Amino acid sequence: MSLTPDSAVRTYIEQHRAAFLDDLTAWLRIPSVSAQPDHAPDVRRSADWLAAKLTETGFATVEVWPTEGAPAVFAEWPSGDPDAPTVLVYGHHDVQPAAREDGWNSEPFEPVVRGNRLYARGAADDKGQVFFHTLGVRAHLAATGRTAPAVNLKLLIEGEEESGSPHFRALVEERAERLAADAVIVSDTGMWAEDTPTVCTGMRGLAECEIRLYGPDQDIHSGSFGGAVPNPATAVARLVAALHDERGRVAVPGFYDGVVELTDRERALFAELPFDEERWLRTAKSRATLGEAGHTTLERIWARPTAEVNGIGGGYQGPGSKTIIPSAALVKLSFRLVAGQDPNHVEKAVRAWAADQVPAGIRCEIDFGSATRPCLTPLDHPALQAVARAMGRAFEGPVRFTREGGSGPAADLQEVLGAPVLFLGISVPSDGWHAPDEKVELDLLLKGVETSAYLWADLAENWRPTP
Amino acid sequence: MSLTPDSAVRTYIEQHRAAFLDDLTAWLRIPSVSAQPDHAPDVRRSADWLAAKLTETGFATVEVWPTEGAPAVFAEWPSGDPDAPTVLVYGHHDVQPAAREDGWNSEPFEPVVRGNRLYARGAADDKGQVFFHTLGVRAHLAATGRTAPAVNLKLLIEGEEESGSPHFRALVEERAERLAADAVIVSDTGMWAEDTPTVCTGMRGLAECEIRLYGPDQDIHSGSFGGAVPNPATAVARLVAALHDERGRVAVPGFYDGVVELTDRERALFAELPFDEERWLRTAKSRATLGEAGHTTLERIWARPTAEVNGIGGGYQGPGSKTIIPSAALVKLSFRLVAGQDPNHVEKAVRAWAADQVPAGIRCEIDFGSATRPCLTPLDHPALQAVARAMGRAFEGPVRFTREGGSGPAADLQEVLGAPVLFLGISVPSDGWHAPDEKVELDLLLKGVETSAYLWADLAENWRPTP
Ligand SMILES: [Zn+2]
Ligand SMILES: [Zn+2]
Repeated sequence: MSLTPDSAVRTYIEQHRAAFLDDLTAWLRIPSVSAQPDHAPDVRRSADWLAAKLTETGFATVEVWPTEGAPAVFAEWPSGDPDAPTVLVYGHHDVQPAAREDGWNSEPFEPVVRGNRLYARGAADDKGQVFFHTLGVRAHLAATGRTAPAVNLKLLIEGEEESGSPHFRALVEERAERLAADAVIVSDTGMWAEDTPTVCTGMRGLAECEIRLYGPDQDIHSGSFGGAVPNPATAVARLVAALHDERGRVAVPGFYDGVVELTDRERALFAELPFDEERWLRTAKSRATLGEAGHTTLERIWARPTAEVNGIGGGYQGPGSKTIIPSAALVKLSFRLVAGQDPNHVEKAVRAWAADQVPAGIRCEIDFGSATRPCLTPLDHPALQAVARAMGRAFEGPVRFTREGGSGPAADLQEVLGAPVLFLGISVPSDGWHAPDEKVELDLLLKGVETSAYLWADLAENWRPTP
Repeated sequence: MSLTPDSAVRTYIEQHRAAFLDDLTAWLRIPSVSAQPDHAPDVRRSADWLAAKLTETGFATVEVWPTEGAPAVFAEWPSGDPDAPTVLVYGHHDVQPAAREDGWNSEPFEPVVRGNRLYARGAADDKGQVFFHTLGVRAHLAATGRTAPAVNLKLLIEGEEESGSPHFRALVEERAERLAADAVIVSDTGMWAEDTPTVCTGMRGLAECEIRLYGPDQDIHSGSFGGAVPNPATAVARLVAALHDERGRVAVPGFYDGVVELTDRERALFAELPFDEERWLRTAKSRATLGEAGHTTLERIWARPTAEVNGIGGGYQGPGSKTIIPSAALVKLSFRLVAGQDPNHVEKAVRAWAADQVPAGIRCEIDFGSATRPCLTPLDHPALQAVARAMGRAFEGPVRFTREGGSGPAADLQEVLGAPVLFLGISVPSDGWHAPDEKVELDLLLKGVETSAYLWADLAENWRPTP
């Protein structure tokens, strides 16, 4: 295994760095905010801009795929080698809303470089991280003398990620044949810190539900009836209180069925990371940690399933008081799932548990939304090893492993395409995703280019996926 | 003890019934809605109308007392006997909002008689029940040949009861000397049923609080942080779940301190009432009873202290889902109190209990509003016996005893004036307080007049309050 950087790659990147940043800046000027209908033309313009750039980059096929919402961009560049692995890069070209008055120090859609940072909405999430692949593949060709990449390279850059990817699953199912791949590379996450390059090995899944409890047909007077009939607000609180046991474990029978426990090696790798709990608490804007007994904070957020209350409500919440027994109450719960858990099984378990908790006289309705499966790639997977090696060459040092506590549409690609998901991202926690003054560190962005430049040859050389 | 009705009283009422109803109808035409600022002139007009009518009735002193809100009416008619008891009648001249389109079959402020019922907003709550005292005292004089009532009679008819009596306590404290009385008669409640005359012997008190729990400084992402920091919505739910034990008793240590338990006789009197639980459940618009073990429904709502959730809220409550850990959550609780409980002691107990429940990393704020004390007059109190006797003569049958689960400003009179509170009301559950088609049963209204006519002589004859 070589961790030696390639001087040809570095020279090529150095030579093309200015044009690359100019291009990225032009793309960042397009306010492709998918959540705001008046920006729909901008999202389309962003897709068209990217499609033109990918054609210019050399992709053999570039298509803008319409959806019922915003369009995605698909590109394909065959290697010419029938035995080469096929890799699908996932990212998104839409961005979060942003306005100067939210606290930005410059216009969010007028990119500026201050110090060694490029500030703009989408700089890190996700245009910058999509875009490093364009210069990456060119550097790969220049350094290897190839005219096509060493792997069959596909890109799918969606346009609705910041709106919850409402049409993504359908798009992937419909286009499954075109998207077929041996591995999915997600470039929409980050790494541990500026000085700690890491590869993420998995994301948690997500099942969400709303539980509504109904008591009296209308709000009734708490003086006349208080103490004598079931109160749905009390019942919903008892339901939530019963959700965890005293060790912080989810108390829904069957919830942990199938959970893939952390290995000792994985726990050791997590423990190796320079984790500063005080600093993490500041990021969490919280004052204490609390969670499942017997697990560290990193284990809790990356590798343990959870049940969390996202919202609770019922009765009078305005100023002052109102002496009522409310007619209804609700709670919104989200369950983060880890490898081995089946969202359908979790849904059944939660429904049975809730029905069991609710007292006589209270009617219970539960709605589950569409779930996201967890994904996890084993540490010894050859493609994961290749990603770590390519990153190690770019950063000239050891690469560590993390996971991601959140959940993303990448899980749909894993499920529909039956391919493992790998994560290649160079964003850092200070990049300010979804916040004012979003930026990308220019040094890290170019390390992303470099990693991408090394990855395709490494993968082709060291991995022959079994069909 | 005589339960014989007085033919002179009945004759007088029969002769003056038409004029009495005409007058009441005129008063009901004034839309004295205290909760709606544009009706403020009507509330003032209602006070002036009543003051004029009380002067015409014969009261020696009649005054309209301004408050920072709507005015109250005070009237006084001394008996001339220095040893006679002094009685203060409490009621209110303001009404709940009402509009034809809420489901009324006639205009709420255009009183109509249909069958033997008078329909209008305020017919039962509370103009009708205030007004029966005017004809009552005249019938008392006519039948006894007196020129002044047998007791020193005072009236205090407030104008903000339907708005929560915000200035009542201050008014009573300021005018305590003028209001001084040996007993307070509240005519703003009702009786069990058309065929079951009852006297209410007490009301529960009320302490209300809002508990706010603060976690993260802002909503944080449940994927990134879920399972590792305390969630204030979960904490508020656990607080509510811990509020009761498995026997339905309030689990706040010290909450029951001082509670006057029901005697066997009181329990037997409650059990005598023709209580139909199915029918009661329909009134409660509920499907099951639930409450403190070892007590009947009537005991639970009349004589047992409770803790009830009036509102709970935190995080996202809109459509769909939002994967957050909310930064804050709140619960609004009301505690109904019974005789022997001190609201200040309850407040201290709840504060200590809540502080004890909240996990590390969650900040807790509690606000208590102003409390209402419980009131309870012993069954053997001579004034209570007199009320029951007067009602028994009017209804020509046995009178039973109830309590009231709600709480009212009468408790302020009890506390400030140091006088026992008695209840004299003839409204029935079907009268539709605060609802469309409010009405009063004309037969019962005249029984109210008759009870009032018997009461003052009975009180003067059978009760010499110790000063
Ligand atoms: Zn993103
Ligand atoms: Zn009233």
